[in-house]
Amino acid sequence: MTSTNLVCVFCASHDSPDATYNEAANNLGELLAKASYGLVYGGGGRGLMGRVARSVADNKGDVLGIIPRALTRLEGCSEVGRTITVDSMHERKSLMNEHAMAFISLPGGFGTMEELLEITTWSQLSIHSKPVIVLNTNGFYNALREFIDKAVEAGFVQKENRDIIMFVDTPEEAVRAIKEYKAPNSRYGLNWNKEEV
Amino acid sequence: MTSTNLVCVFCASHDSPDATYNEAANNLGELLAKASYGLVYGGGGRGLMGRVARSVADNKGDVLGIIPRALTRLEGCSEVGRTITVDSMHERKSLMNEHAMAFISLPGGFGTMEELLEITTWSQLSIHSKPVIVLNTNGFYNALREFIDKAVEAGFVQKENRDIIMFVDTPEEAVRAIKEYKAPNSRYGLNWNKEEV
Ligand SMILES: [Mg+2]
Repeated sequence: MTSTNLVCVFCASHDSPDATYNEAANNLGELLAKASYGLVYGGGGRGLMGRVARSVADNKGDVLGIIPRALTRLEGCSEVGRTITVDSMHERKSLMNEHAMAFISLPGGFGTMEELLEITTWSQLSIHSKPVIVLNTNGFYNALREFIDKAVEAGFVQKENRDIIMFVDTPEEAVRAIKEYKAPNSRYGLNWNKEEV
Repeated sequence: MTSTNLVCVFCASHDSPDATYNEAANNLGELLAKASYGLVYGGGGRGLMGRVARSVADNKGDVLGIIPRALTRLEGCSEVGRTITVDSMHERKSLMNEHAMAFISLPGGFGTMEELLEITTWSQLSIHSKPVIVLNTNGFYNALREFIDKAVEAGFVQKENRDIIMFVDTPEEAVRAIKEYKAPNSRYGLNWNKEEV
């Protein structure tokens, strides 16, 4: 295994009828590889997930897919890069976090949004201090921005945590955000073992 | 242990400056207990979490809190009902799912939204077929409805999964939604062991 810097990408396991989403996934993969980043992801071969993976691999980037056994039928196994089959959904998330030096969320459904918010919560709890980036293609995640504003106003998200998620509009900006990222000071300063997550 | 039907409630571990949120939490606890439901929840004594728990207990309902060791300092241990201290965030979610016959999400921050979406994803994947209810106090979760619409339109959430989350406006409607719930047919028909989640 090469010691590539792996970026974890969350996104839909379906393609969209709107080609803008599909192209953003292709472009992100290409730009990540050209900037010498590899990919760690959920391991599926379908939809935006498959696009990002093939695009990274086509541009000679390292690809590591991590897929739970029970999902291989549903999401399809990727034919590019290395795949690790794990026993549980939780093991997938935990391993993706271990391998990643940054997270980018492309548009997706409930599962994508959940992965994005879990990794955001882990940042809030000082389980990690890596960049969490949302690629807001077509304003897909504007509703998430509204949710955050509402939650800050209601007192449920603290002001210092408002900006854990960085919103960008293009794959170029996403890659730049990783390069320029500086980790914040620890938020709650809890000490976590990997077994506690 | 009594064989109470336990409802899992996700919500903020902070109170709000807007009393409407705090009162909704108090009311929900009372109505659950009066309808003979108990509570399973994250085990914190603070904010809306603490309110729901105290209100269920004050009305003679069963309360079961499940809290990860590392979080006891941050969220505060509840002084009502039984508390199980677990070793990890994941064990908490898994145990809450095992004990619950329904899920209600009140307003909250990143962690609350993540719990709601994880349980929604688990329904989508046929890991459970229990009701998932959002108490949309003050229209707090309107942004989530917008996200779902956008995700369906973009092809990332399938139409048959649009209504996994049931939105209600009052605690009364939330309790009624549990009583009247009929489980849908299995969506993907995957077979899951609890170890695979
Ligand atoms: Mg989760």
